[in-house]
Amino acid sequence: MSSSYGKNLRLTIFGQSHGAAVGMTLEGIPAGSEIDFQELSAFLARRAPGRNPWSTPRKEPDEPEFLSGFVGNVSCGAPICAVIRNSNAHPDDYRDLSLVPRPGHADYTAEIKYFGFQDRSGGGHFSGRLTAPLCIAGGIAKQLLEKEGIRIMSRIYSIGEIPDEGELTDDLSRKAFPTVSDEAGKKMIDLIGRAAAQGDSVGGIAECVCTGVPAGLGDPMFDGMENRISQIAFGIPAVKGIEFGLGFEASKRRGSQNNDPFEIIDGKLQTKTNNAGGILGGITNGMPLVFRLAVKPTPSIAVEQESVRLDTKTNETLTVRGRHDPCIVPRLLPCAEAAAAVAILDAYLQRRSELYGKHGPEKAD
Amino acid sequence: MSSSYGKNLRLTIFGQSHGAAVGMTLEGIPAGSEIDFQELSAFLARRAPGRNPWSTPRKEPDEPEFLSGFVGNVSCGAPICAVIRNSNAHPDDYRDLSLVPRPGHADYTAEIKYFGFQDRSGGGHFSGRLTAPLCIAGGIAKQLLEKEGIRIMSRIYSIGEIPDEGELTDDLSRKAFPTVSDEAGKKMIDLIGRAAAQGDSVGGIAECVCTGVPAGLGDPMFDGMENRISQIAFGIPAVKGIEFGLGFEASKRRGSQNNDPFEIIDGKLQTKTNNAGGILGGITNGMPLVFRLAVKPTPSIAVEQESVRLDTKTNETLTVRGRHDPCIVPRLLPCAEAAAAVAILDAYLQRRSELYGKHGPEKAD
Amino acid sequence: MSSSYGKNLRLTIFGQSHGAAVGMTLEGIPAGSEIDFQELSAFLARRAPGRNPWSTPRKEPDEPEFLSGFVGNVSCGAPICAVIRNSNAHPDDYRDLSLVPRPGHADYTAEIKYFGFQDRSGGGHFSGRLTAPLCIAGGIAKQLLEKEGIRIMSRIYSIGEIPDEGELTDDLSRKAFPTVSDEAGKKMIDLIGRAAAQGDSVGGIAECVCTGVPAGLGDPMFDGMENRISQIAFGIPAVKGIEFGLGFEASKRRGSQNNDPFEIIDGKLQTKTNNAGGILGGITNGMPLVFRLAVKPTPSIAVEQESVRLDTKTNETLTVRGRHDPCIVPRLLPCAEAAAAVAILDAYLQRRSELYGKHGPEKAD
Amino acid sequence: MSSSYGKNLRLTIFGQSHGAAVGMTLEGIPAGSEIDFQELSAFLARRAPGRNPWSTPRKEPDEPEFLSGFVGNVSCGAPICAVIRNSNAHPDDYRDLSLVPRPGHADYTAEIKYFGFQDRSGGGHFSGRLTAPLCIAGGIAKQLLEKEGIRIMSRIYSIGEIPDEGELTDDLSRKAFPTVSDEAGKKMIDLIGRAAAQGDSVGGIAECVCTGVPAGLGDPMFDGMENRISQIAFGIPAVKGIEFGLGFEASKRRGSQNNDPFEIIDGKLQTKTNNAGGILGGITNGMPLVFRLAVKPTPSIAVEQESVRLDTKTNETLTVRGRHDPCIVPRLLPCAEAAAAVAILDAYLQRRSELYGKHGPEKAD
Repeated sequence: MSSSYGKNLRLTIFGQSHGAAVGMTLEGIPAGSEIDFQELSAFLARRAPGRNPWSTPRKEPDEPEFLSGFVGNVSCGAPICAVIRNSNAHPDDYRDLSLVPRPGHADYTAEIKYFGFQDRSGGGHFSGRLTAPLCIAGGIAKQLLEKEGIRIMSRIYSIGEIPDEGELTDDLSRKAFPTVSDEAGKKMIDLIGRAAAQGDSVGGIAECVCTGVPAGLGDPMFDGMENRISQIAFGIPAVKGIEFGLGFEASKRRGSQNNDPFEIIDGKLQTKTNNAGGILGGITNGMPLVFRLAVKPTPSIAVEQESVRLDTKTNETLTVRGRHDPCIVPRLLPCAEAAAAVAILDAYLQRRSELYGKHGPEKAD
Repeated sequence: MSSSYGKNLRLTIFGQSHGAAVGMTLEGIPAGSEIDFQELSAFLARRAPGRNPWSTPRKEPDEPEFLSGFVGNVSCGAPICAVIRNSNAHPDDYRDLSLVPRPGHADYTAEIKYFGFQDRSGGGHFSGRLTAPLCIAGGIAKQLLEKEGIRIMSRIYSIGEIPDEGELTDDLSRKAFPTVSDEAGKKMIDLIGRAAAQGDSVGGIAECVCTGVPAGLGDPMFDGMENRISQIAFGIPAVKGIEFGLGFEASKRRGSQNNDPFEIIDGKLQTKTNNAGGILGGITNGMPLVFRLAVKPTPSIAVEQESVRLDTKTNETLTVRGRHDPCIVPRLLPCAEAAAAVAILDAYLQRRSELYGKHGPEKAD
Repeated sequence: MSSSYGKNLRLTIFGQSHGAAVGMTLEGIPAGSEIDFQELSAFLARRAPGRNPWSTPRKEPDEPEFLSGFVGNVSCGAPICAVIRNSNAHPDDYRDLSLVPRPGHADYTAEIKYFGFQDRSGGGHFSGRLTAPLCIAGGIAKQLLEKEGIRIMSRIYSIGEIPDEGELTDDLSRKAFPTVSDEAGKKMIDLIGRAAAQGDSVGGIAECVCTGVPAGLGDPMFDGMENRISQIAFGIPAVKGIEFGLGFEASKRRGSQNNDPFEIIDGKLQTKTNNAGGILGGITNGMPLVFRLAVKPTPSIAVEQESVRLDTKTNETLTVRGRHDPCIVPRLLPCAEAAAAVAILDAYLQRRSELYGKHGPEKAD
Repeated sequence: MSSSYGKNLRLTIFGQSHGAAVGMTLEGIPAGSEIDFQELSAFLARRAPGRNPWSTPRKEPDEPEFLSGFVGNVSCGAPICAVIRNSNAHPDDYRDLSLVPRPGHADYTAEIKYFGFQDRSGGGHFSGRLTAPLCIAGGIAKQLLEKEGIRIMSRIYSIGEIPDEGELTDDLSRKAFPTVSDEAGKKMIDLIGRAAAQGDSVGGIAECVCTGVPAGLGDPMFDGMENRISQIAFGIPAVKGIEFGLGFEASKRRGSQNNDPFEIIDGKLQTKTNNAGGILGGITNGMPLVFRLAVKPTPSIAVEQESVRLDTKTNETLTVRGRHDPCIVPRLLPCAEAAAAVAILDAYLQRRSELYGKHGPEKAD
């Protein structure tokens, strides 16, 4: 199996980049959940292409049609299905690629995996376009979590060697280029522009911060929050690493520097620092849940590259045509939020079962 | 659910650090698989404590008893169950901790999660001791993979700020301190010693390299090899980050630098570099599968720390007693290998279904 | 979770009777599978309403649109999504039912389950219309199995007290009323007509026979073929019982009468009788897999019935309007075949993994 | 996968009849659940062999040892593992069977499935002995459900052609031969005795009635209560059919006879009859959940039978030696209760998540 995620929620994503549609089914959304479809569209628009210099000019309205799961805008308990039609497909751009796999892309591995039967147009099921249905699911999950006081925000943490500055404490989703420091943002935009001018691309790091997450979400061992979030986050194309809290930086520290001391403030337990990123033993501790995704530079570049012909087994050079982002990080932010939202809501629904009949979260404080 | 992993294989881990036993059940191992139990014991010994200055003096023979799943040393198709008795439990060491959670540990989150009913002794189900059953499963998986030409190796990639040097190309499992560069290893041991002398601990990075992995393992989106490996690897306590191939370093690169060019060598397709760590679109490409785990410093330290009493909600200081590793990275290596072996074998068994009746992997080249 | 089934195949069914569409996603169909869409339509037509005196006059073309998973008519390995638009919805027929649950229907339990937020029109997600997407999945699975020599047939085993006569050995799918004995069939049609004339309905038993099923499918305990088939077959509304082979009749027998003796015929092992219905210990033995479904009489009847108003908690009488089959068994046959096909293909894909590289029992001989 | 069941609970059963032990792991039991181990032992004793004329003389104490999941007798949230040692194994009794499969047994299908590597002694993993761990899980689940007012009872519904009389309304578990009518019971015991005297065996039907089950458990389609219970119940060896409520009898009825009219009694909704067996649309309706299992006659009989030698492919006669029940139905009753308890508790834990924050079940009335 491949394109399904979750236990209490169950998300399945389908579609190919230049097929009839992309879409998703989502089971487990509690009956009676009211969804603001306009807000959902606004969330999807953050991922949509074609709005900025650093984004591909392919323009898709990306408006989902809901085929099931709702009566009006209220969920009815049945599985939700939503589809986005592919109105602007250009399959011809990809014709030459079929026998000469693009370096850094899934063209070759798809060929091996599916014995040549994969849908080659535009990356088929491997296309970044498949993150649109992820954002439908994530946008729904986000709205449900917000009603519970859980808020999911993100920023561009770095582009290439250029880091953002400061900490992410506010929602930046209205910014066209969401960095805390506008100055750092300008440098990053500049870097992206230079790479684009050379027909090249550049990578970066996305950071996601989730506040209001109650303590007690997640399970030990293989269903901890780190396990759950990484399982869904690596479903976003181009992600090659994930870290929680200090992450790789923690590996350089002493225990006495890395452990987060507990303290009581106003009768409430918290930690003085948050190096753990809100997770201990796989379970949330009530502090903000923080993770970062390492995003590789977009593999589709106009620069000439070395590849091979799969049929003749001869070396070839390749120049990728078509419409591609010189940097995917800005459009990846809502995807990271979507991944977090689905993972957290899944854990949250399980937690409700644990809390039912107990004194509730406040008891355990 | 919590302590189960896998689809074609299904691993469940049970036990508490100071309970009667720790163990695992493993379903899906093909009938007729011959296991060398002596080799398995040698693998488990690499994880066992008490052998080195950087390891806790708790001595456990860690010899598993197999209760089911075998006739002699040949798997019979039924679920395998193996247990390791806890012969050397010292529950008293942990008595004081019950109300004062150790910073950096799961004590507090377990309290919230299980409403105070968790097994507190030695971290209970959250103990590092639970990696012993992971290594039983992984040791079995490793032996099966080796017969298919898939080899899983690991090394200490860094301790604190000190990196190893060179690339991991050979099995280092016979080294007491597995680094490529012995000189770098000495510096690391020195650093660990200094931290230990101060009652402190230090973190590091473990690297795992899997060679001989055929192209075509893994699925798109949520069941890619990155998703699968990270889901199991975060089950190892103290892991706070994972990266594949260049990982976070890729975020700093240009596409033209990061894409791995394809080439034909002796009629066989490969890539000139392996920045992707052997995975494209979630699916293996035939190159070595490479990942690294960020390991935080052991949270159990003798240094006095700030914490709180959960009952009185007052601030407290805490000095952790008991037996603890000043650095967990050396003993974590076999766990990383075990996680990789279980994840790869799980994907491999699925791949067999896809290949059955096809011309086989060579056809697709 | 609710509307998903399978391990190697993964089927999710969505939609409400009078919503925008019903449909399904199906993951795990091997890449390169050629589907005859015309044959699939013919299969779906067997389930479609409106063709016969014993079927509701609601006419739906029931032509699925495939949104993903294919390039032309060849599966590409990505999840398949197909939808059927609801063109002929009459939501008004069901307005009165919302507060007065229909006896024998899911109206009341849906009310409790979804706290009044369920889609009430036409049974919503509980409608028999949801068997159309089941038949899309099953029709695809059937075609794949036929290429492997596995054939799935069904018949009306009884209607009310009237049994069919003879054994099912040939495909009866071209018969409008598929019984082995035409005479028995006539009596059954007569009985249905009499019930319909009284505004009443009648139940019956559907039998499914699967030939060419290789020995070795299924697993012990909870994933035996009986477990797998019953898990999906009870997803067909109105099914209240299932039996394999002799089933309930076996409970009346002696062991010496019920055990199927083994024999060698032309060097091939078989059993002299097939009381086990082709399954021993959950695993197929190479004999025809036989099961029967007990189908209750359609609960929607024009006869006045006793019910209650959920808001006022007062007793009420109810006469169900709308379009309803006086007997659902004829249209249930393709659903039973679909359920069997999905369950068998799921097990078959797992079996391929087990057989890969083995000599295989007789195949290998 | 094979021997695992459940979503919110996760049960894995392991062991072979004459191996070191049989046992189970059970994840998902809420932390803080107090278990009466003496009561659990009493429940297991109902399944244990060797107590009656109609039961095999093999005597096993069947006392489980709990290796994990408890602190004292209170569950701690971690996976529970319990094992029962096989102290009374007679592997020699089964030596001859290895090449001559017993009719009606899994010997042949296990041979095909596991390519001859299966554990042949005493049926290995297919042995009825594997129902002991099922009863450990079920006994725990039963105790939890009883605290919620859910009570699970069972009776011998028929042996051979002899039916019990009356309805099951009281717990009969203290009866050595649990029928409602003692007279009917005597006739059944007599029938079993006659079959045993001839070295033969006889089948029957077990009935299970669950009272106090709240409305709203289960899901539509593939996770309805019928689907869930049948998936686990067919894991009990010798079960060849299952029906809910009227079951197969409903197939003979008119809709006007079969539909259960709703009524309000003391302000509470109920149905006048319970032909649906407490389940509508897969979801419980608050009436007693009733199901029956068709149990085939024990296949191990002393009567000479026809079989074949698998190596020489020649016909053979076979007389099964060893210790076998002439009728398995009495000992199967606790297994049926265990299956129901695990399935219902699994659904109940999910329901808690749905109810959390709602007004609870009474709101929806």
